Amino acid sequence: MSTEYKQTKLIIGLFGFGVVGESLYRVLAKTPSLNAEVRKVCIKNPDKERNAPASLFTTNAEELLNDTAINVIVELTSDPEAAYKIITTGLRKGKAVVSAGKKTIAEHLPELIELQQQYSVPLLYEAACCASIPVIRNLEEYYDNDLLHSISGIVNGSTNYILTRMAAEKLSFAEALKEAQAAGFAEADPSLDIEGKDAVNKLAILATHAYGAVADPRELVHAGIDNLHEADAKYATEKGYVIKLVAQARKLANGKVAAFVLPQFVNRNSRLSGVQYEYNGVEIESSLADKQFFYGKGAGGFPTASAVLSDLSALRYNYRYEYKKLLCNEPAQLTDDFYLKVCVSFRSLLHVSQDLFERIDEWVSNDQRCHITGIIHCSKLLQGNWWKQADTSLIVYPEGIIEESASKAKYAERELLELV
Amino acid sequence: MSTEYKQTKLIIGLFGFGVVGESLYRVLAKTPSLNAEVRKVCIKNPDKERNAPASLFTTNAEELLNDTAINVIVELTSDPEAAYKIITTGLRKGKAVVSAGKKTIAEHLPELIELQQQYSVPLLYEAACCASIPVIRNLEEYYDNDLLHSISGIVNGSTNYILTRMAAEKLSFAEALKEAQAAGFAEADPSLDIEGKDAVNKLAILATHAYGAVADPRELVHAGIDNLHEADAKYATEKGYVIKLVAQARKLANGKVAAFVLPQFVNRNSRLSGVQYEYNGVEIESSLADKQFFYGKGAGGFPTASAVLSDLSALRYNYRYEYKKLLCNEPAQLTDDFYLKVCVSFRSLLHVSQDLFERIDEWVSNDQRCHITGIIHCSKLLQGNWWKQADTSLIVYPEGIIEESASKAKYAERELLELV
Repeated sequence: MSTEYKQTKLIIGLFGFGVVGESLYRVLAKTPSLNAEVRKVCIKNPDKERNAPASLFTTNAEELLNDTAINVIVELTSDPEAAYKIITTGLRKGKAVVSAGKKTIAEHLPELIELQQQYSVPLLYEAACCASIPVIRNLEEYYDNDLLHSISGIVNGSTNYILTRMAAEKLSFAEALKEAQAAGFAEADPSLDIEGKDAVNKLAILATHAYGAVADPRELVHAGIDNLHEADAKYATEKGYVIKLVAQARKLANGKVAAFVLPQFVNRNSRLSGVQYEYNGVEIESSLADKQFFYGKGAGGFPTASAVLSDLSALRYNYRYEYKKLLCNEPAQLTDDFYLKVCVSFRSLLHVSQDLFERIDEWVSNDQRCHITGIIHCSKLLQGNWWKQADTSLIVYPEGIIEESASKAKYAERELLELV
Repeated sequence: MSTEYKQTKLIIGLFGFGVVGESLYRVLAKTPSLNAEVRKVCIKNPDKERNAPASLFTTNAEELLNDTAINVIVELTSDPEAAYKIITTGLRKGKAVVSAGKKTIAEHLPELIELQQQYSVPLLYEAACCASIPVIRNLEEYYDNDLLHSISGIVNGSTNYILTRMAAEKLSFAEALKEAQAAGFAEADPSLDIEGKDAVNKLAILATHAYGAVADPRELVHAGIDNLHEADAKYATEKGYVIKLVAQARKLANGKVAAFVLPQFVNRNSRLSGVQYEYNGVEIESSLADKQFFYGKGAGGFPTASAVLSDLSALRYNYRYEYKKLLCNEPAQLTDDFYLKVCVSFRSLLHVSQDLFERIDEWVSNDQRCHITGIIHCSKLLQGNWWKQADTSLIVYPEGIIEESASKAKYAERELLELV
């Protein structure tokens, strides 16, 4: 099996010259062994001073997309609409594309997979999930569909930074957010992060590579951390937990996949609890490899640039995602037919009905706040927004998903607790 | 950049049918999407009952190596001599080779790299380092030479199991070893593991992929855990440390690489301290990606099989190690010109001379044992075996390597402690 080892030179058309784009440009320029060259950079603002020859820049996207010498488009803009155009046009022009645009990729994945097949060109986006952590590549290559039990991780650095500060300094969410913004770990408009939208975009991408389960991220159950109350953090501490925003996908006994992003209590000595500040961490459980854990910086210019670099390196041996679980096997179906053990915390009973719960195990209340611990069916979280209202928070217990049969067996014997 | 995506069918000649070989055979048989088939299995013992058709087996290696239909040799024997012959013959016959034979690979790496180039065929061995943890692949693809600061890890599951039990149950080394053997986590002849030889084999492989620094593992400074004393564990606990056997390679300020395997105190709340029992964990620090941590099962049939499977999967798109740091850049040189902060513990002063130390910071002794904390030059560990004698142990402090300049600056101001 003699391998003809192609050393195709990568001629790059780069969109975006922020920290990631500029780092990439510098590393490529000083590392000839990578055999890659940035030919042209498309920017939005021509008046900004750039630390590179003026002849390198253009504001005209067509100049890159129509240049037949360019064989790779690297998309590092911060504009999802623009990113969509650049990626799809690049693929249609027969160019390989590398992108860090998680929102664009998550929301258009079926179309982007089809374009890759139709034009027989690769689209790589390791930087879109947990930046420097090589999680997509490992899901693609290390786990066969029927062997993967679960994937769960902290995939958003901003919210993890805020949660870490809330726990360490007993700050309120608002105080911690302000601090994170000052430290550069949260955007001026933090809504994408703190409402869990960024995390669920990443989860949608991970679920595709892990299980072949393609979902519109907007339709997966997700929440952020903006409703977490100081009392929740206190409650967690009392129970020996810390609160993390966890994205997870798990194969149930019936072969279907449960996937959601929710705040979760994790045990204080667990691996996820050790993921602090802007770091990310992903746990993967499978039959053969058993438990694996990947940890690293999930955001920031340099970690993102390292992921983009690794994608470029992969293009040099014609690597592409196979989407094996989607295209070669029977893809797994997503389901919302499972139970969760949760703690719902709120101030007024008005919008939290006891009827929402299958079982209530504990009810603690004081002047300021009520905490209900119980079992809830996931579909109840898709019905209405009661659990996302101001001053209401929902946190999953460490045991998380309870499958129907297990739930029945486990709870049939138990007496209903008297509600206070 | 249209990628012609080759779906070469892998026709496999398999050497060895233990847990790894048999798992591999089963997974490939039931997963047609992998497009790989085991054509023949070479075994040593024809009389052992096998859970597969008799026609599959042979005791004649030539039958596999001379079969032109076979394009991949998978080497999973437990005999380093046999492995060497199989791997080199396979490559010479133009076949791709996948191997888990760390000893063979570590000791013959220069020759094996040359054969890959000469015959233009790949040799993959992800299973040889930390089994299921994709550390070689990530070193190859994620880290460019001048960007990698250090790699340090727990790479031997047997010794880590023993150390975990020693710490948790206050067992002696001998007791913990016996227990590990009973639990199947240590071999009947445990010397390869407990003397650090297995770990240094893996370090040699990692150093090649991380820095292009090729070393005969037998010439790298290494020790195991067989000399650790209960008093050492107690001493560690008092200081807030745990003892781990750590393999590490670090780029020094002068561009040279320090590499060794030694017992080390690690902080109780560090990531390496969280690696327990038979698990492995590797920390990588680099400029762009910053800190990364990979954790998983480092030994055992299934985790090893998962690594072999991922290598096979990679062969399908003609992946091969590029040995970029060795072949494309200026490879880094290994050095023993650096200092270590260590604790040497012993019973009799007879063979531990104070002159060995640059500085002695602390000297604690009681009836049973002395502990000297000080700075020692690495070359002193290559001169003679004084520190490996029975009843003498050497443990590196968390700060580990102290470079010459730093050492001078740091210690110049300090007063010499009076020796007791």
